[in-house]
Amino acid sequence: MKRLGILLSGRGSNFEAIAESIAAGCLDAEIAVVISNRADAPGLERARARGLKAVLIPSKGLEREAYDRLLVAELARHEVELVCLAGYMRLLSSVFIQAFPMRIVNIHPSLLPAFPGLDAQHQALAHGVKFSGCTVHFVDEHLDAGPIIQQAVVPVEDGDTDASLSARILKEEHRIYTEALRLVLSGQWRLAGRRVIAAGAD
Amino acid sequence: MKRLGILLSGRGSNFEAIAESIAAGCLDAEIAVVISNRADAPGLERARARGLKAVLIPSKGLEREAYDRLLVAELARHEVELVCLAGYMRLLSSVFIQAFPMRIVNIHPSLLPAFPGLDAQHQALAHGVKFSGCTVHFVDEHLDAGPIIQQAVVPVEDGDTDASLSARILKEEHRIYTEALRLVLSGQWRLAGRRVIAAGAD
Repeated sequence: MKRLGILLSGRGSNFEAIAESIAAGCLDAEIAVVISNRADAPGLERARARGLKAVLIPSKGLEREAYDRLLVAELARHEVELVCLAGYMRLLSSVFIQAFPMRIVNIHPSLLPAFPGLDAQHQALAHGVKFSGCTVHFVDEHLDAGPIIQQAVVPVEDGDTDASLSARILKEEHRIYTEALRLVLSGQWRLAGRRVIAAGAD
Repeated sequence: MKRLGILLSGRGSNFEAIAESIAAGCLDAEIAVVISNRADAPGLERARARGLKAVLIPSKGLEREAYDRLLVAELARHEVELVCLAGYMRLLSSVFIQAFPMRIVNIHPSLLPAFPGLDAQHQALAHGVKFSGCTVHFVDEHLDAGPIIQQAVVPVEDGDTDASLSARILKEEHRIYTEALRLVLSGQWRLAGRRVIAAGAD
């Protein structure tokens, strides 16, 4: 059974969706550790409520690389094979990326490469797109830029607000994060350039 | 009946889709003139075969603004109210944009703002997105950047080539160009920031 490490900074609703998928038997994996860089992240308490190992490693005042070394050590201690970001609000340094090459996955609430960075749903609304969505991707050293594993599309309605669009996208996030993890953990994929191609697809 | 002017540089399959929509009674408009900047554009002959006014205005050797003044004069001569780009392979100067403010429409084979510019379908494939599509938008002085009127989404399949993805997108282009023109010509829309909102939607 593959061991997942979760990094979060807030409520971690995508972490909960992954935990639910595992509990429901939809995902053959276990959550080895949940780490937050913020003491007030509700995701920490929710992890403990599920009987999971939950660790606070405060990032405040630490330089990125020094902090990332602490993270890598904690993940290694729990023998984590795949790192899942779930609302983790820090850029990862090359120290971290190189410790888990192609083994860090993130979800972002837009159809990347459109609207990387903060407030993606607001960016999409302000730009006036008619469709947006979410993206599960491998993490590299650039912001929201690694190879794309899975995406989902939602319509943008004329009456949408940031909140209504975010809610519509979040529902899809929970669905595709599990789907993407299932593909990655199966090993039945390969990289062609930066395309993630399922085995047997060509 | 609203008078459309079509600009093209090639076969103009989106021009033909618009002409078909008009012939089928789906679009209450008429094509006043079809203009190509290239003598070898098959769209010119196809326009003539439909009994439409087809005009060649060669762009070779002319500076952009000088050329655009010729275009504007020709469109004015035919009392064109809305300009539709259909594979017109030149950037429009501010001379042209200011002559037809918010009255120039283009279609682009990607989900803008992703993949503007040339070879959008190839860009999308190479980036590894799982969905792409097409966008009808108002034209401003920036490349593929004006307010978005309508979009359509298609899946990108693992086995796709530039040709197969382009064909899938093209089918949607023909559908949404007519839909977008119907909205624009109805006047039942307004601009909120850069969002195009249908009347009665809020």
